[in-house]
Amino acid sequence: MGAPSIAVVGTTGAVGEVFLSILEQRGFPFSSIRLFASERSVGKRITVAGQEHVVETVGEGAFDNTDVVFISASGAVSRALAPVAAASGALVIDDSSVFRMEPSVPLIVPEVNAGDLEDHRGIVSIPNCSTTPLVMCLYPLHLVNPIRRIVVDTYQSVSGTGRAAVEELRGQSENLLQGLPISRSVYPHQIAFNAFPHIEPFQDNGYTNEEMKMRNETRKIMHAPDLAVSATCVRIPVYVSHSEALHVEFTHPISPHEARELMAAFPGVHVQDDLDSNTYPMPWEAAGNDDVYVGRVRQDISIPNGLAMWIVSDNLRKGAALNALQIAEEAVSRELVHPRQTAGAG
Amino acid sequence: MGAPSIAVVGTTGAVGEVFLSILEQRGFPFSSIRLFASERSVGKRITVAGQEHVVETVGEGAFDNTDVVFISASGAVSRALAPVAAASGALVIDDSSVFRMEPSVPLIVPEVNAGDLEDHRGIVSIPNCSTTPLVMCLYPLHLVNPIRRIVVDTYQSVSGTGRAAVEELRGQSENLLQGLPISRSVYPHQIAFNAFPHIEPFQDNGYTNEEMKMRNETRKIMHAPDLAVSATCVRIPVYVSHSEALHVEFTHPISPHEARELMAAFPGVHVQDDLDSNTYPMPWEAAGNDDVYVGRVRQDISIPNGLAMWIVSDNLRKGAALNALQIAEEAVSRELVHPRQTAGAG
Repeated sequence: MGAPSIAVVGTTGAVGEVFLSILEQRGFPFSSIRLFASERSVGKRITVAGQEHVVETVGEGAFDNTDVVFISASGAVSRALAPVAAASGALVIDDSSVFRMEPSVPLIVPEVNAGDLEDHRGIVSIPNCSTTPLVMCLYPLHLVNPIRRIVVDTYQSVSGTGRAAVEELRGQSENLLQGLPISRSVYPHQIAFNAFPHIEPFQDNGYTNEEMKMRNETRKIMHAPDLAVSATCVRIPVYVSHSEALHVEFTHPISPHEARELMAAFPGVHVQDDLDSNTYPMPWEAAGNDDVYVGRVRQDISIPNGLAMWIVSDNLRKGAALNALQIAEEAVSRELVHPRQTAGAG
Repeated sequence: MGAPSIAVVGTTGAVGEVFLSILEQRGFPFSSIRLFASERSVGKRITVAGQEHVVETVGEGAFDNTDVVFISASGAVSRALAPVAAASGALVIDDSSVFRMEPSVPLIVPEVNAGDLEDHRGIVSIPNCSTTPLVMCLYPLHLVNPIRRIVVDTYQSVSGTGRAAVEELRGQSENLLQGLPISRSVYPHQIAFNAFPHIEPFQDNGYTNEEMKMRNETRKIMHAPDLAVSATCVRIPVYVSHSEALHVEFTHPISPHEARELMAAFPGVHVQDDLDSNTYPMPWEAAGNDDVYVGRVRQDISIPNGLAMWIVSDNLRKGAALNALQIAEEAVSRELVHPRQTAGAG
């Protein structure tokens, strides 16, 4: 079977750029690649796997004969393009929240629920960048000791918002250090040397969309429809990697030692937990790495069957681009992708 | 009755400096003031309430005829000097953790447990700067609906560590923005554009001292010896003000509306909670203000009788200097301080 033809929508964004580097790094085989972005990036030349490509806008028939389409742009772009690409026969791997909770759309973290891919109808969603590291660490524990309740508070980096937010943090930081006034365009409030509990719009129940995603997506991915989850999602002045403080209640007792062993044995999870040497996960160190890091694992002193822990993960990699590519790899190995362009090549 | 003679140990520190400004601002009456600091600040001239004073080191008889001594330096300084000052007849108001959990030492947030002052034996402790805002917000709720469990994750500023940490954050931020290497001296890890779950040393149970303080001090101040509390304390790159995400379980149902009304009616608590206008507490705004700010109050969707909320407070003011001075005001109004120097003045 030949390699699939692929397309990337959102090539020049924070996730898109990382996606192309991971594509090269993992040597994902493709027969052809098309790079799409918005008007202002058109004509930009980008080298992928040694070959130069020109960035295009999505026009009529853009996805014809494309086997796999990755979309990481905005919700509006996904809403408009994902159904078109799927209708043209491509497998769409979508980074937006638009389709995640649709029953017909698999929401996939390959290490956890790759089997759900089998039911796809053209669109597959990747989870929110705060949900993925959470389920990566908790699923191996949930399998042996069902989780009853998760309390999670996040410490999220600005790259989760996109490239403009990274520039906003940098610019505001520079100005404040020089005693100059700052400007705001991405966030409603100053982010440099500040923090605010506001990621995505508020819902009627007082939670944000981001906080509700952490509950709803965790339930869907782990096949635990009644799992109790309460989150507070907070933006902090960090460029890359999201951190999370977890307080988890299990059905039966579980020791920190057992939990560390279960998580360390799970692919993609790295236990970093040595208090004597001040070793625990940190966003600055996790940035640029594929694993989800977990540390500060301890018996929660406030409930009988509880654990507290601290997890950190590069939100652009496992939180987005890496997870997307892993889904493609999984789909290829399950023969859910059927390359068409190469029909004459065999 | 005349005004008390006072002394400040740690005058030139982050808390000491704020203390002197609050002393002026609130017009706390004193008959005399002595300013103490370590060797390297000796001879420095500081103007308090229009009068210049010279910073001294603590020598023999330093606290003779002093009615109230404020100490905010290090644990070692408090351990050495508080008993001496108390033995000389002064009321010692101590900012360290050294004496807080001693049964004979009142641990005071005046709005919550001023009555405990009556039992003092010379030393009164002020709570940890993360504990004070927590009890300020939760005590009015606990009074009408006993709290069963608190899960709290903190977002703490570097000024809680002291002036050197503020300079470390500033210097590291400047260097990183210019692509230069950074140096570390205060923290074990880079703090600029980073975060780490490590405040104070680790205990055998995997929690840090800071996290255990939040449990133990909350229990003592609220007279709730069995209250379940689990905390993760995290340092983030913010200069002033600590933020906290709370998930609180009560005995009976409680609505966000009722909780907001109870907290708003409590002295020193300011409800900042209007989602339509993106209004919630933030460290940058809370810095320099006396109140404890609370917002994002919502029904916790993961338990029956739960509330989630977000609180922010200037760790140098209500978290330290302001609370210390309020204790002195309370002690004076309860006639627990008996000025001696003014004996001949009446």
